[in-house]
Amino acid sequence: MDDNKLKIPTQYYAYNAEEVNLIKSNAQECFPVWLDNYKHDHSVHWLNFHSIDCKEEIEDFATEMGLHPLSVEDIYTFVQRPKVEEFDSYIFFSLRSLEPNTTSLELKKEQLSFILGSNYLISFQEKKSDHFTDVRERIEFDKGRIRKRGADYLLYKLLEAIIDNYFEVIEDVQQKIEEYDIRMAEEDDHSLFKEIEAEKRQLIELRQVVFPLKELFGQLEKLNNIQIDEENKYFFSDLRDNCLSLLDEIESNKSILEGLGNIYYAIQGQKMNEIMKVLTIVGAIFIPLTFIAGIYGMNFDNIPELHYKNAYFYCMAVMIILAIAMLIYFKRKKWL
Amino acid sequence: MDDNKLKIPTQYYAYNAEEVNLIKSNAQECFPVWLDNYKHDHSVHWLNFHSIDCKEEIEDFATEMGLHPLSVEDIYTFVQRPKVEEFDSYIFFSLRSLEPNTTSLELKKEQLSFILGSNYLISFQEKKSDHFTDVRERIEFDKGRIRKRGADYLLYKLLEAIIDNYFEVIEDVQQKIEEYDIRMAEEDDHSLFKEIEAEKRQLIELRQVVFPLKELFGQLEKLNNIQIDEENKYFFSDLRDNCLSLLDEIESNKSILEGLGNIYYAIQGQKMNEIMKVLTIVGAIFIPLTFIAGIYGMNFDNIPELHYKNAYFYCMAVMIILAIAMLIYFKRKKWL
Amino acid sequence: MDDNKLKIPTQYYAYNAEEVNLIKSNAQECFPVWLDNYKHDHSVHWLNFHSIDCKEEIEDFATEMGLHPLSVEDIYTFVQRPKVEEFDSYIFFSLRSLEPNTTSLELKKEQLSFILGSNYLISFQEKKSDHFTDVRERIEFDKGRIRKRGADYLLYKLLEAIIDNYFEVIEDVQQKIEEYDIRMAEEDDHSLFKEIEAEKRQLIELRQVVFPLKELFGQLEKLNNIQIDEENKYFFSDLRDNCLSLLDEIESNKSILEGLGNIYYAIQGQKMNEIMKVLTIVGAIFIPLTFIAGIYGMNFDNIPELHYKNAYFYCMAVMIILAIAMLIYFKRKKWL
Amino acid sequence: MDDNKLKIPTQYYAYNAEEVNLIKSNAQECFPVWLDNYKHDHSVHWLNFHSIDCKEEIEDFATEMGLHPLSVEDIYTFVQRPKVEEFDSYIFFSLRSLEPNTTSLELKKEQLSFILGSNYLISFQEKKSDHFTDVRERIEFDKGRIRKRGADYLLYKLLEAIIDNYFEVIEDVQQKIEEYDIRMAEEDDHSLFKEIEAEKRQLIELRQVVFPLKELFGQLEKLNNIQIDEENKYFFSDLRDNCLSLLDEIESNKSILEGLGNIYYAIQGQKMNEIMKVLTIVGAIFIPLTFIAGIYGMNFDNIPELHYKNAYFYCMAVMIILAIAMLIYFKRKKWL
Amino acid sequence: MDDNKLKIPTQYYAYNAEEVNLIKSNAQECFPVWLDNYKHDHSVHWLNFHSIDCKEEIEDFATEMGLHPLSVEDIYTFVQRPKVEEFDSYIFFSLRSLEPNTTSLELKKEQLSFILGSNYLISFQEKKSDHFTDVRERIEFDKGRIRKRGADYLLYKLLEAIIDNYFEVIEDVQQKIEEYDIRMAEEDDHSLFKEIEAEKRQLIELRQVVFPLKELFGQLEKLNNIQIDEENKYFFSDLRDNCLSLLDEIESNKSILEGLGNIYYAIQGQKMNEIMKVLTIVGAIFIPLTFIAGIYGMNFDNIPELHYKNAYFYCMAVMIILAIAMLIYFKRKKWL
Ligand SMILES: [Mg+2]
Ligand SMILES: [Mg+2]
Ligand SMILES: [Mg+2]
Ligand SMILES: [Mg+2]
Ligand SMILES: [Mg+2]
Ligand SMILES: [Mg+2]
Ligand SMILES: [Mg+2]
Ligand SMILES: [Mg+2]
Ligand SMILES: [Mg+2]
Ligand SMILES: [Mg+2]
Ligand SMILES: [Mg+2]
Ligand SMILES: [Mg+2]
Ligand SMILES: [Mg+2]
Ligand SMILES: [Mg+2]
Ligand SMILES: [Mg+2]
Ligand SMILES: [Mg+2]
Ligand SMILES: [Mg+2]
Ligand SMILES: [Mg+2]
Ligand SMILES: [Mg+2]
Ligand SMILES: [Mg+2]
Ligand SMILES: [Mg+2]
Ligand SMILES: [Mg+2]
Ligand SMILES: [Mg+2]
Ligand SMILES: [Mg+2]
Ligand SMILES: [Mg+2]
Ligand SMILES: [Mg+2]
Ligand SMILES: [Mg+2]
Ligand SMILES: [Mg+2]
Ligand SMILES: [Mg+2]
Ligand SMILES: [Mg+2]
Ligand SMILES: [Mg+2]
Repeated sequence: MDDNKLKIPTQYYAYNAEEVNLIKSNAQECFPVWLDNYKHDHSVHWLNFHSIDCKEEIEDFATEMGLHPLSVEDIYTFVQRPKVEEFDSYIFFSLRSLEPNTTSLELKKEQLSFILGSNYLISFQEKKSDHFTDVRERIEFDKGRIRKRGADYLLYKLLEAIIDNYFEVIEDVQQKIEEYDIRMAEEDDHSLFKEIEAEKRQLIELRQVVFPLKELFGQLEKLNNIQIDEENKYFFSDLRDNCLSLLDEIESNKSILEGLGNIYYAIQGQKMNEIMKVLTIVGAIFIPLTFIAGIYGMNFDNIPELHYKNAYFYCMAVMIILAIAMLIYFKRKKWL
Repeated sequence: MDDNKLKIPTQYYAYNAEEVNLIKSNAQECFPVWLDNYKHDHSVHWLNFHSIDCKEEIEDFATEMGLHPLSVEDIYTFVQRPKVEEFDSYIFFSLRSLEPNTTSLELKKEQLSFILGSNYLISFQEKKSDHFTDVRERIEFDKGRIRKRGADYLLYKLLEAIIDNYFEVIEDVQQKIEEYDIRMAEEDDHSLFKEIEAEKRQLIELRQVVFPLKELFGQLEKLNNIQIDEENKYFFSDLRDNCLSLLDEIESNKSILEGLGNIYYAIQGQKMNEIMKVLTIVGAIFIPLTFIAGIYGMNFDNIPELHYKNAYFYCMAVMIILAIAMLIYFKRKKWL
Repeated sequence: MDDNKLKIPTQYYAYNAEEVNLIKSNAQECFPVWLDNYKHDHSVHWLNFHSIDCKEEIEDFATEMGLHPLSVEDIYTFVQRPKVEEFDSYIFFSLRSLEPNTTSLELKKEQLSFILGSNYLISFQEKKSDHFTDVRERIEFDKGRIRKRGADYLLYKLLEAIIDNYFEVIEDVQQKIEEYDIRMAEEDDHSLFKEIEAEKRQLIELRQVVFPLKELFGQLEKLNNIQIDEENKYFFSDLRDNCLSLLDEIESNKSILEGLGNIYYAIQGQKMNEIMKVLTIVGAIFIPLTFIAGIYGMNFDNIPELHYKNAYFYCMAVMIILAIAMLIYFKRKKWL
Repeated sequence: MDDNKLKIPTQYYAYNAEEVNLIKSNAQECFPVWLDNYKHDHSVHWLNFHSIDCKEEIEDFATEMGLHPLSVEDIYTFVQRPKVEEFDSYIFFSLRSLEPNTTSLELKKEQLSFILGSNYLISFQEKKSDHFTDVRERIEFDKGRIRKRGADYLLYKLLEAIIDNYFEVIEDVQQKIEEYDIRMAEEDDHSLFKEIEAEKRQLIELRQVVFPLKELFGQLEKLNNIQIDEENKYFFSDLRDNCLSLLDEIESNKSILEGLGNIYYAIQGQKMNEIMKVLTIVGAIFIPLTFIAGIYGMNFDNIPELHYKNAYFYCMAVMIILAIAMLIYFKRKKWL
Repeated sequence: MDDNKLKIPTQYYAYNAEEVNLIKSNAQECFPVWLDNYKHDHSVHWLNFHSIDCKEEIEDFATEMGLHPLSVEDIYTFVQRPKVEEFDSYIFFSLRSLEPNTTSLELKKEQLSFILGSNYLISFQEKKSDHFTDVRERIEFDKGRIRKRGADYLLYKLLEAIIDNYFEVIEDVQQKIEEYDIRMAEEDDHSLFKEIEAEKRQLIELRQVVFPLKELFGQLEKLNNIQIDEENKYFFSDLRDNCLSLLDEIESNKSILEGLGNIYYAIQGQKMNEIMKVLTIVGAIFIPLTFIAGIYGMNFDNIPELHYKNAYFYCMAVMIILAIAMLIYFKRKKWL
């Protein structure tokens, strides 16, 4: 539906070292301009969609571009595992972005797909939220090397932005760990434990994305194609190093979270011991004493002790001695 | 026995890009037609059995087809591990289908075997339940590429259907995990814990099937034979990717289930602490007070306090102060 | 000692596709016949010892056969790890048989050694129990392919019989697991837990045998020698697949047993909670009430309440209200 | 800012087998001398910065040296993972130093970077603390081989100093383990458990540095460049062996710390059992006795026993017998 | 110091198939004889030191032998990890011996170093305890092959003796496991748990030595040098197999020890449950009864029941019924 199509916010950048052209509109308006221009080799052409709502129109567009139907299908297949596929005239790339979520214990997720031609890049973002503000700025204000380099370098910068988000997940977990270190001593509730496990789940989810991504960048380095310059492969190898660091961090932080879980159990056990000590000390002192009081509360006709003159005081003395003996016993046991 | 043979529901499809012939009957009727026709190269021939009840007849059939006796034996050998074996004129393939089971904590299982010739495929389903409805529809109504491609592509589609079931097992587990997240806080019973372990067992069973399957598809890709077209190998490599994703999911979900188990223990420990706190607070307050009451319930002749005018009221005051002191102590300990 | 030698039950089979000769006697009588005949190439010669009691005689025999002294030593060295060693004229093979034990929690063990020449096989069984009844029958009644094939195929069949026993260990464990699933809910004793750990030990022991065996069969396949026919290597590769399946099963069942152990802890914890709930409910209701009763059991001269007309009934009413309040509190906490 | 620049303490050594020149000043004064001299091949030139505070000046210096801007960036990028990068005229190397911390449970950390040319080495230390006193002494007093060897050997000695610090971390952990072995029996507090987990975290952090370092030294050995002499590669292989030892130690000590954690839980459980035994013994003896006393404290008009002559004494005897029976019961249960 | 030198007990064997010469004295006397003779090729020369106390003299000796200074340094460097290093005229080998210790939970340790020339071997034992009695006997009384073989075979026999000690560590652990199986049911103390963890530590320590040793023997097999005969390499491959067996045993026994730890926790939990059951049963029966007794011990003026004729007996009947009801309840719960 054209009405829907209007809703896909789209940007079309065509840039080179000298100039930048930007059309910031919707897919409907960008498509024809793109198809007329993207083959002009002296510029890098970047088409970025902020939504993938209208599948039909994108399919039509893909057909006109000569893209394989499988590639469009993959844009609409939501999977954990990142994917790279080489076609004759382009490389298809898709991966999942993960970001910490300030309002929930689950990560924010988004599927991103890329079509990399020799001088163009098409990027599909599932949601309206945007990961590429910084890259756009670099293009517009000619910061860094981006305007002097090709579409492969642009892809590298976009992927770098996504991987930076992964590091933010880790940093968020590390911050939580510091927080737990403090809360651990104070809180009494198992909700802390649940949060620890929720953080672990985030790491597990991140791992599921980063582990295959690492292998994928390894593949990219080995590919022999026109879309990626030999001299730019260094950048993809750098992303691979980032993935290795991420995997290290994931493992370490998972181990630390497991350690926190162990501390939780240890504290829980110690609290239990303390609770029971209080009951045992009170019980062990007063239950026998109450029994003694009970004896002299019996109504037998003939209980000689009741009639001795200072019996009450002797009885109290015995009770106090018993209590003190008990206290010494517990002191010795280090329960007090 | 011919009587049994009649009971094996069988379908014989012979199709090509232009036409489809379907005989939907029993093995007895399909065998002679098949043997007359399956060598005609211009079509793909697919014979599908919905039961493997009568071994003898299938052995006879296999002999007429020139299949190795070991292959028939393998159809009747029920094992966890999938298997591929190359023979001169065909490839034997067997694997186990696993499906979630709505009425039990165990998965539904079925052994499936395939004989792939250069232009034919024979499939054996152990049970009457059917995994291939969708594929049959694609053939009959000429949906997708299936009618234009060979027997190897047909095998791919059938395997894909089975692997889709594996993903359903995972999805079922994930749904259960969400359910457990909620039930965890409410339920008091260890049956929840048992269910968690039952889900883990399902993942372990699935892993036992998928892990060797992954290696098997890797082998298939490397085979150099007439049964599988070079250009169709891409599809088997796609199945291998599916297996990798499945293994990722299995590991992640197993870790999450382990985390849920840990939470169960943490909640159990906290409940214990709460139970004991109640007893300890009640005990620590009232056991000493009861002892005091016991003292003044003793029947000694000479207990001076008993005869003081306001002794009872002073005694009650002391008791109340003691109780309040205890309450403050517990408040400070954050037990209240 | 000749007296001992007489005690080694021995069978000497010489068979080919046409005929079988069997001498079923003791080592003393079999040795000379064997040495006269085993080099005749038109038959397979199999010498099987049911005991290895008299080392000296076996050493003499080995010397006459031209076997390396190290091989005899290895027959008498009891180790967990299977072993294969290639010599000029024969291959030495030894492994440990493991069987489930109906009367104990430990597996039945036996060391088995094999000397494989180009047309003969000598097998040493440590104990009188026999693993090879089925193979013997196949030879005597010419079942299957055995009479048409060489000594390497005979070795394969013997090894297969041993590996079948390994599968029985697994089946036994799986049966136990089903049993434990039921007993878990009923039994109160830690002996169940001990049995679970005993089953795990069996799996660990089996793993220690099967893991190196798998590698060993891989080596056998690669060996380039006259003792094993190229076309029979398939069978050894089949044994290797069996080992892989066994390893899968071992891992899975170990995980399931660990899961059962976790369930045991969860049930134990829940029972504890139940026990303490009973005590806490009883205590929290009756300890405060007993205290109130204690107050009005005191003997102070001046306790005004004692003399009010319906004081006893009001007191009882207060007690009942308190008890009901407590019950409602526990009901709310879901302890009842 | 020049003011800042003055604050970077800097040493410039130029040495060979015959003589040493040392300028110990700040970066401002060392830069021009260095730029005039460092290309003179007959000496090894070593420039060491004790701070990396003023990025701008270092960037200028790097430009004059012809260093890649990425290298300077890496000096200011703080990461866990060590890094080596080969450029045309130099090798860039950075890693993190870790040292035990006497006043805290966290390790002391510092990022160190190196620029290795064919006859010069520039080293950047993030903090003022110094790791290289020993190396400086060796140069000044001509100890060992250092004056006879090139800049690559100098780098080796500096890296060795850093890796020695890693071993100190391990030794510190081992010392702590011995301490915990003793404290375990005495302390009652979960802070011991927390310390165990803190030590584990240190090992995890160390592992994260050493594991990639091991691979990195493996790479260095394989590099084919002018900066590292073939005959000095032995030294880098030695550092790799050190990393392997470190990894062994890390794993072993982590396992031992896990074992200590298990012991902690076992002790905690046993203390709990002891506490509850005391309460149970006291309760099981005195609660029934108190009940008996309670019976004869009732005020019914007609309780015949109360009026028997020796009733009180019989009652006491019954109580004592009951108590003794209980004690025997607990003795039998080995609770006493 | 010569005084110290005198204290190093030393043996110098020069042997061949025909004769043995033994000088059993101290280093001072052996050195000159050795230096005169060790180059005579027709014998194997073995110099064995029972202490490494005087470094200086050994350095002088090494210099005269033409050994690399690094080798002597390695003799004095105490590390866990075994080491092999090839030099032009000799191979340096060092490893750690580990033995079970009857009087302590820690293993006995000793560093051993070897210098293997083409016809000589120098062995350094750190402590006076001796591992090589058996080898010495074999040389002196010409047992086995040793006198007919070279210095490499001698090294093999010495290493075999050390590895035999490793197996003794395993056997000791296995014996302890059997002991623990029995003690587990009887002992109440956490010292058993500590012993289990101590045994685990021994296995961890052993693993740290055996794992790199395995790789080292693999290297030795591949070395191409004059010190080790091609035909003797078999022996070093045999030592490698021993290491593999050891690693299997270490893993298995560690798993079994972990299982024992789990059983300990299960027993501890069950004991806790039993303790609490006793308290709960006693409490749940007598606390309510005591409350009833308390009611009729109150001194209200108007308690009508007190004056009924058989009230006391009815009251007792109610109490007995309550107690029986409770007992039935606990019986049903299987707590009795
Ligand atoms: Mg993981
Ligand atoms: Mg981990
Ligand atoms: Mg790791
Ligand atoms: Mg880690
Ligand atoms: Mg850990
Ligand atoms: Mg883990
Ligand atoms: Mg698994
Ligand atoms: Mg796993
Ligand atoms: Mg994993
Ligand atoms: Mg995982
Ligand atoms: Mg985990
Ligand atoms: Mg655990
Ligand atoms: Mg294992
Ligand atoms: Mg596993
Ligand atoms: Mg596994
Ligand atoms: Mg394992
Ligand atoms: Mg498993
Ligand atoms: Mg598991
Ligand atoms: Mg596992
Ligand atoms: Mg575990
Ligand atoms: Mg780790
Ligand atoms: Mg470990
Ligand atoms: Mg390890
Ligand atoms: Mg370890
Ligand atoms: Mg362990
Ligand atoms: Mg672990
Ligand atoms: Mg280990
Ligand atoms: Mg293990
Ligand atoms: Mg293992
Ligand atoms: Mg194991
Ligand atoms: Mg285990």
